[in-house]
Amino acid sequence: MNKTCSFQNIALIGSGNMVYSLSKALIFKGIKPCCVFVRDPEKVADVEHDLNVNVVTEYEKLSNSDLIIIAVKDDAIAEVASHFINYAGLIVHTSGSVSSDSLKNCIRTGVFYPLQTISKNCTVDFSDTPMLICSNSVEDLKKLHEFAHILSDNVVDCSDEQRMYIHLSAVFVSNFVDVMLDIGSELLKGNDIPVSIIEPLVKETVEKAFRIGPVQALTGPARRGDYKTISKHESLLKMYPNEKEIYELMTKYILSKYL
Amino acid sequence: MNKTCSFQNIALIGSGNMVYSLSKALIFKGIKPCCVFVRDPEKVADVEHDLNVNVVTEYEKLSNSDLIIIAVKDDAIAEVASHFINYAGLIVHTSGSVSSDSLKNCIRTGVFYPLQTISKNCTVDFSDTPMLICSNSVEDLKKLHEFAHILSDNVVDCSDEQRMYIHLSAVFVSNFVDVMLDIGSELLKGNDIPVSIIEPLVKETVEKAFRIGPVQALTGPARRGDYKTISKHESLLKMYPNEKEIYELMTKYILSKYL
Repeated sequence: MNKTCSFQNIALIGSGNMVYSLSKALIFKGIKPCCVFVRDPEKVADVEHDLNVNVVTEYEKLSNSDLIIIAVKDDAIAEVASHFINYAGLIVHTSGSVSSDSLKNCIRTGVFYPLQTISKNCTVDFSDTPMLICSNSVEDLKKLHEFAHILSDNVVDCSDEQRMYIHLSAVFVSNFVDVMLDIGSELLKGNDIPVSIIEPLVKETVEKAFRIGPVQALTGPARRGDYKTISKHESLLKMYPNEKEIYELMTKYILSKYL
Repeated sequence: MNKTCSFQNIALIGSGNMVYSLSKALIFKGIKPCCVFVRDPEKVADVEHDLNVNVVTEYEKLSNSDLIIIAVKDDAIAEVASHFINYAGLIVHTSGSVSSDSLKNCIRTGVFYPLQTISKNCTVDFSDTPMLICSNSVEDLKKLHEFAHILSDNVVDCSDEQRMYIHLSAVFVSNFVDVMLDIGSELLKGNDIPVSIIEPLVKETVEKAFRIGPVQALTGPARRGDYKTISKHESLLKMYPNEKEIYELMTKYILSKYL
């Protein structure tokens, strides 16, 4: 059975993956956004065609909504919000690194930040995604909590400052992990080895890190001070100067912090 | 039903996590090692007590075995092997980065390298762990293949050179990923945020990377050239100079390679 939604008419603003993924997830829960606002409708053709959501290009069309979710580029949030100074509904943005102050000229404000990596054409399962929320009113925080809870079992109240650190942490544990996986994959491909060979290792690494902690889980040549292997690796990386730089810095970090 | 083992008497040499984990996994498959050789028996008290495997301290005690698995530190492999120049059985080491040449004075040789991260007190599920093998004889390679297949469905023949690159790749995708998870966790702990908050993000990051490729999966401020957020992150990292150095190098790498 669907949970009751605290908002009747939800509008989204933006043309990126967040708008598409949130709209899709809401529709899946039986809640169809009343519209998506965008400057260039071609950019959200998928929202209109795949999801059958009404796309609008004038801010006035959003006046009947009671929740506006701004999911535009960080830099554009304040400008977009400036069109809703007298808006009677709740207005939130979805950014991890922008302060809730960016909405301070509006009446009822908040943040609704799903802590997840969202790529084009990938369906996101929000059910265990932490939904980080805050609001300038206790009542709206409660409504936002109920709303977020429709999508996820993992709703977390957090301050602006906490959210910034969570976003920074996410860069290390998601973006930089991705880069490590890319470098590891390229080293394999360059030697005719299928990338799938490292999948069980990566999955066990992550599971073990959350089970016993990443420091306890850490193995490898730097961790055991095996300089001979480190120097072998450095010669294998001769032809990959940028990757060698990363290898050397990470190794230096492990040697000085964990050894 | 247990698969038939190509070897009757399996001996292991070493006192580390590999010896314990392999012994435990073999016993689970109904194959009890005939003995574990170690210089200092105290170091493998767990092998003797938990697993009830015979621990010996004289090389002569291994002469009745038909497979010896050397799982000692990389530097010690050649010295250990020098005691088995006339050994009639198959002798293998378990190292990712040591050439099979290290056993060249022995008669029947090979490598048996499980591509997995193995920590003290953590039971390893070898069932999907790639077992990388090679041997100086086709016949022994076949026997080693059958043996490895008892523990894992994922047995891969590979050359010394390929194994070195796989081992190097493993450092990036396991050890360095662990460090990223540690840094991300510390940033959370320092701000009273439970580490579990990033678990769904990390799991989705890894799954998506293997589903669509790490480059396609990459998101975040550096990937989209968001210099304002990058500079916010750098100020948040003021108090963490070593982590800031890593942030800056990884960001530079993303900006130059993927943007």
